[in-house]
Amino acid sequence: MSQLHLVIMAGGSGTRFWPKSTSRRPKQLLSFEGDGKPTLLARTLERFDGLVPLENRMIVTTESLTRAIAEEAPGVRVLSEPQARNTAPCVYWAAREVASRDPKGVMLVMPADHHMGRVEDFRATVRRAAERAARCDELVTLGVKPDRAETGYGYLRLGEALEPALSQVEAFVEKPDARKAAEFLASGRYLWNGGMFLWRAEVILRAFDEFMPEMKRVWDESHGQIDQAYPRLTATSIDYGVMERARNVVTFTLDCAWDDLGSWTSLETLAYALGAAREGGVCTAGELLAVQSRGNVVDAPGKLVALLGVDDLIVAQNGDAILVARKDRAQDIRLVVEAAKKRRPELV
Amino acid sequence: MSQLHLVIMAGGSGTRFWPKSTSRRPKQLLSFEGDGKPTLLARTLERFDGLVPLENRMIVTTESLTRAIAEEAPGVRVLSEPQARNTAPCVYWAAREVASRDPKGVMLVMPADHHMGRVEDFRATVRRAAERAARCDELVTLGVKPDRAETGYGYLRLGEALEPALSQVEAFVEKPDARKAAEFLASGRYLWNGGMFLWRAEVILRAFDEFMPEMKRVWDESHGQIDQAYPRLTATSIDYGVMERARNVVTFTLDCAWDDLGSWTSLETLAYALGAAREGGVCTAGELLAVQSRGNVVDAPGKLVALLGVDDLIVAQNGDAILVARKDRAQDIRLVVEAAKKRRPELV
Repeated sequence: MSQLHLVIMAGGSGTRFWPKSTSRRPKQLLSFEGDGKPTLLARTLERFDGLVPLENRMIVTTESLTRAIAEEAPGVRVLSEPQARNTAPCVYWAAREVASRDPKGVMLVMPADHHMGRVEDFRATVRRAAERAARCDELVTLGVKPDRAETGYGYLRLGEALEPALSQVEAFVEKPDARKAAEFLASGRYLWNGGMFLWRAEVILRAFDEFMPEMKRVWDESHGQIDQAYPRLTATSIDYGVMERARNVVTFTLDCAWDDLGSWTSLETLAYALGAAREGGVCTAGELLAVQSRGNVVDAPGKLVALLGVDDLIVAQNGDAILVARKDRAQDIRLVVEAAKKRRPELV
Repeated sequence: MSQLHLVIMAGGSGTRFWPKSTSRRPKQLLSFEGDGKPTLLARTLERFDGLVPLENRMIVTTESLTRAIAEEAPGVRVLSEPQARNTAPCVYWAAREVASRDPKGVMLVMPADHHMGRVEDFRATVRRAAERAARCDELVTLGVKPDRAETGYGYLRLGEALEPALSQVEAFVEKPDARKAAEFLASGRYLWNGGMFLWRAEVILRAFDEFMPEMKRVWDESHGQIDQAYPRLTATSIDYGVMERARNVVTFTLDCAWDDLGSWTSLETLAYALGAAREGGVCTAGELLAVQSRGNVVDAPGKLVALLGVDDLIVAQNGDAILVARKDRAQDIRLVVEAAKKRRPELV
């Protein structure tokens, strides 16, 4: 069978875990398992030990993060984007790189900063999906089996079933409202779109040529000079640019306690699943001392965080920044980050 | 007139401002005016510039604090108590010291860690009270004019008026409940007991001989050896041991925006009085960034504290300790401190 190549997208600079995450050390470079534990990127890489050899691993990130990423992933090739241009240019570049060495090679594209609760289940699904992608001219995705009516994710609507846990994808569906999400869950016909794809390099390049022909044109005109090509590549997502338009998309059902770690509150979901929640709430770094307090999420490396009579707060500290937020406002942390950027840019 | 001697009681090791206050650096050694500003002890001392010469100043504290206190009050004599025994032994010792140098000297005894909003009004009252104490064989107190029905303080019930803002004290009254406190305020016949006293050394020593004769006996038997005397002196308050029993107690009405700074919430009262409260609440150290948050009290030297959607919290940081407490639980911080003492004693 063809070799498996791993392409990890690690360009994110999200603000949803501020102050733990900053522009210099975004989520993929953080650990959520406690002080001194492996980062999400390290965990992502180690899931492929024995599946993808070092020389077939590649990380795509932005220039400002290249050095930190390289330190965290010794020996792994790092593609350094001149600027963030969403995922389509990143996938296109990576596909050109794989194709130049191994056109029949299967590449797995996935984010650097997600959680997999059951790694062996994840690896088994990857093996099946890689075999399928090597054999068929398809764009293979890993769709996550939903366990709740989540409104924070996009969905895949399943078409014809091909094999157990393998179906055609009928449509990519935007984040639904609560009513629709409940319908999706009840129907059993939807999976979460976790942004994980497998295909042969030649197959995705053909799809680019069909749906985003400007990519090849810009690339050829720039003679593969990244600095020249990148600003001109269409800044859109691979989902919107290619996947939603292609007709040869199939999905494996991934059932491995996946979580995208999208906000402080997902740490809580995770901790409860792992039985790591305790009196006072969840503490992902530092030490929590809770008196008559419940449902809090605490992250303060090396610190003792004492709570008295408070419920449902996020309390996070990093260097000279301390955040205290109501848990149900976790999605609005960007408001704080924008304000902090003006006052103390070095803390953001 | 007799000389004025100043006796500052600075032995407190309260926990109500933890983690800002610790056993090594209690409240009197802290500033509540912002990073790098003078401590409460320094402010207390500077109120007597021009009133009490350096050689007539004395601070009584416990052995463990002696060094830190001496550094904060250069040139001031420090009496180092072998152990904390409440205020009666402390006053007795100080009175013996003053009497040995200047029996007719008037001594002013007061805490090190209170706030005076209008210093000139305080000084004017001290001057009048010192003149009275020099002239009359009385135990003079400074009773604070109440501006609210406070249940956290003891009260003085006024007897016969002697001069404007000077009355006999009919009784010392324990902390009242809310209904009684409201009656006290409405009656105009009560002042707060702020623990500030003036008397000639010989007058208070006579009162000790009358109401606590064991003090002199222990002292004489120990030949003035503090280490021997202290453990045997009656550990009670000067209020209970002497003042409540004496019949020659008078009080001046002190009206100078006094506050005992008894908890994090008194900082708020103070800040509002000073017009220092802002969006999000009050910040006594560090920088506050508040988004849709109100009524909080923040103290985190050198830190940026970002609040999102939270109201009426205390957020305080010192070294490796962070406290987040509901403001109406400020009186229960000792619960947290007791728990922290077991887990991280170095932080308490």
